[in-house]
Amino acid sequence: MSELADRSGVPIPTIKFYLREQLLPRGQLSSRTQASYDDSHLRRLRLVRSLVEVAGLRLEVVRRVLAAVDDEAMTRHDVLGRAHSSLSLSPTAPASSEDLDQVETSLEQWGWKLHDQSPLPAALAQALLALDSLGHPMSDEALEAYAKAAVAVASVDVSQLPVDRSDAVETAVVGTLLREPVLLILRRMAQEVRSGQSQGQ
Amino acid sequence: MSELADRSGVPIPTIKFYLREQLLPRGQLSSRTQASYDDSHLRRLRLVRSLVEVAGLRLEVVRRVLAAVDDEAMTRHDVLGRAHSSLSLSPTAPASSEDLDQVETSLEQWGWKLHDQSPLPAALAQALLALDSLGHPMSDEALEAYAKAAVAVASVDVSQLPVDRSDAVETAVVGTLLREPVLLILRRMAQEVRSGQSQGQ
Repeated sequence: MSELADRSGVPIPTIKFYLREQLLPRGQLSSRTQASYDDSHLRRLRLVRSLVEVAGLRLEVVRRVLAAVDDEAMTRHDVLGRAHSSLSLSPTAPASSEDLDQVETSLEQWGWKLHDQSPLPAALAQALLALDSLGHPMSDEALEAYAKAAVAVASVDVSQLPVDRSDAVETAVVGTLLREPVLLILRRMAQEVRSGQSQGQ
Repeated sequence: MSELADRSGVPIPTIKFYLREQLLPRGQLSSRTQASYDDSHLRRLRLVRSLVEVAGLRLEVVRRVLAAVDDEAMTRHDVLGRAHSSLSLSPTAPASSEDLDQVETSLEQWGWKLHDQSPLPAALAQALLALDSLGHPMSDEALEAYAKAAVAVASVDVSQLPVDRSDAVETAVVGTLLREPVLLILRRMAQEVRSGQSQGQ
């Protein structure tokens, strides 16, 4: 277990907690006091950490994602979709059905097809409503420019996903959440750079 | 004052609070119980609301931004930069000087020049370190793709800024913060769309 802790960077008490909560399978007993762990444990441990610590998911949600990873009947894409929609966004008030219709229209125009239970269209409608209500509505052109940029970064994200389902889910969870601040910080930098250029300082 | 509340959407008790805190100048007294407010009050009120409620800035920071807006000796670009760097990012631990050097090198390669006190390079170094430490480092190529996308959205943001300084700061604050969720949600949608395409569903 101390080797597992070393290789994963996860402290032993945390590993013990994951074992107790059955998020991590027990190792093969090699003696009465020693259990051996292999690469499958290391991989599962990394995935659990990304779901618990990076994504901050409740344990019951983590269990559902792990069950999907282990369900051989599901495709890798379905497993990724399941993990992806477990990732929470900032809490938002519900948007009206009219706002939602507008979002659906844009998605259709762009040819974007999401799974039926996706929380994202309602979240987008809500985010756009917040801008509207402060008198700064986003034009269709601006939204489309954002969508194009989103496709560009998402293509990089998705192209780098590992083939293995468990690794893919871990990478998707960590990459989706921890690359968010990178994108937002770069956008703020670029705003400053562009603002300087547009005024010639 | 009730007309001001109507036109701005800011409740009267909030307006009274801003007046008491001297964030909003008093109106012209037209009688002993009536004061009249003009467009300059409405504009200042919108700006204060964006700084207090949208950006969640402390009142002393709001006062500093307002002072910059009112300081005729500062260029519009400087005022925008001042407002921009007041906007907080998620709290982060300090990055090492080595991490920071790497970020500075990238910025130089891209020709991005930020103002000297910008907190953004350190924030970016910290965000990249978080990815590193979880075993998901971001490649230079991926970072550059993100930077390009950031320029695309920032160009849209900056091109739509009003000429008036006060309006420009308000739009920059609201647009910078409230368009962040829009971009992040679109990125998650695009990830799902791309993941579906790369597997042919």
